[in-house]
Amino acid sequence: MTIQQITASVRQQVDQALQRHLSEAGAEQRLADAMRYGVLLGGKRVRPYLTMTIADICGANVSLALNAACAVECIHAYSLIHDDLPAMDDDNLRRGQPTCHRAFDEATAILAGDALQSLAFSLLSTPVADSVPSQRQLQMVSVLAQASGGMGMCGGQSLDLAATEKQLTEAQLERVHRHKTGALITASADLGVLCGIQQAQQYRSLFRDFAENLGLAFQIQDDIIDVTSSTEVLGKPQGSDQQAQKSTYVQLLGLDGARQKLLSLHQQALQSLADIPYNTESLENFSTVLLTRDH
Amino acid sequence: MTIQQITASVRQQVDQALQRHLSEAGAEQRLADAMRYGVLLGGKRVRPYLTMTIADICGANVSLALNAACAVECIHAYSLIHDDLPAMDDDNLRRGQPTCHRAFDEATAILAGDALQSLAFSLLSTPVADSVPSQRQLQMVSVLAQASGGMGMCGGQSLDLAATEKQLTEAQLERVHRHKTGALITASADLGVLCGIQQAQQYRSLFRDFAENLGLAFQIQDDIIDVTSSTEVLGKPQGSDQQAQKSTYVQLLGLDGARQKLLSLHQQALQSLADIPYNTESLENFSTVLLTRDH
Repeated sequence: MTIQQITASVRQQVDQALQRHLSEAGAEQRLADAMRYGVLLGGKRVRPYLTMTIADICGANVSLALNAACAVECIHAYSLIHDDLPAMDDDNLRRGQPTCHRAFDEATAILAGDALQSLAFSLLSTPVADSVPSQRQLQMVSVLAQASGGMGMCGGQSLDLAATEKQLTEAQLERVHRHKTGALITASADLGVLCGIQQAQQYRSLFRDFAENLGLAFQIQDDIIDVTSSTEVLGKPQGSDQQAQKSTYVQLLGLDGARQKLLSLHQQALQSLADIPYNTESLENFSTVLLTRDH
Repeated sequence: MTIQQITASVRQQVDQALQRHLSEAGAEQRLADAMRYGVLLGGKRVRPYLTMTIADICGANVSLALNAACAVECIHAYSLIHDDLPAMDDDNLRRGQPTCHRAFDEATAILAGDALQSLAFSLLSTPVADSVPSQRQLQMVSVLAQASGGMGMCGGQSLDLAATEKQLTEAQLERVHRHKTGALITASADLGVLCGIQQAQQYRSLFRDFAENLGLAFQIQDDIIDVTSSTEVLGKPQGSDQQAQKSTYVQLLGLDGARQKLLSLHQQALQSLADIPYNTESLENFSTVLLTRDH
């Protein structure tokens, strides 16, 4: 099984729902098109998969879980659109396609990102009949807002910018990743639990721990793939493709050290799942496939 | 009385609360500084004034109203930071100070705007003891998210960009303004009502009508001031300072026509207030001072 196969069904549901929500998302056609382009350009849908799968495990209402999964993906998509801008990472391609500001223009890309963030909170605050209490839904808004804000994802992006051309310690690098990518991955899992029945709420911190460790391991995997796929594809010696300007786990721990750290985080993630008295086989399987991918 | 005098007390409360919320708003110092800079750089605080005053009229819990007022100002501030960016209006100065991307850098300004939007929804979803039901607070999130998104403020900014160098009809110009500035002004009033007691909720649409007409009149006033202050200050003939690239009400209706339209909108706004069986004198006074200012 590949990640794409595992997430295929969630991906289809989420993309259909996003298409629906995006059909009336912009007062102006070009903005609506850019939002759709940014959010539907592909991707593994790791975050919505976590939300939907954990929501299912926790006995959630499917409509609410789908709204939450779409909200998470809107936040992820907006962050990619803004990260790709010339003033940030200045990328021309993402997933083999022109980035949003290349396909449209910079102003439209900035606005599309902004409007996708608003759409996320609009989706999360939509009342869903027969769903969880409003108080819990409000908690979901709070979780996502904090994960995306200055103490979460935006804060991580800022830490990352500040770290360019600096050699970080392992603790500093972990801090960057826990904010930049970890916060939203953890929130994706958390939202899944919060959609669920009352009894499931007692396992919130275990699901969060699972996602935190998975998120960091996922990042280390990225650093490893960056080196190992160079070795195979480009025939360069291991490690030579480490980005000169950014600290990586491979650079800090060596390739074996990074692989060990990844394994240890994966073990911790699986242990959190083992402590949850529900059937979490799908998540175990997902995490294993995700963390052993080689490209 | 000037607008500054009328809003002074709200301004002080909101700025103090924002200072408090912003003291822990960013994982990285530069980001936190840029957020603070963008949101506390001055301004009349028209939107928080509407929220706080209407909340007061509707018997609201003050803590909830203050959170809502701060949330509205965070959205307003983020939109100014992003509008000033080189890819958008490319402004170097705002309120006589360097714009956020000039005082910091473009990447930090983009992130500060993004994080301020998240902060707005974080504030709105904070539980407030003895406040309105969660269901209503969730409605507040929804109102603000829709006002700021692609069908609201971002949509208006996009319509405005698309209209550059085009001659708009009055209906098209009104559409730009109702989205670009009107949506958030209307939401500011609406949030004030939603903070209030249950009985006040029946007057939501009247308060919204008041704010909609006030918002559009405020925009026409801006167009008029742009022409008349040129006449007085620069000694140029009336109308010569109309921006070549943007349609304005003065250009479409003439100076007298624009003044008549402003008066008529103000009358409609006052009529909505007259239909509300609460003491709305403060809002009447505020709207009159706001719409008769000459700079």
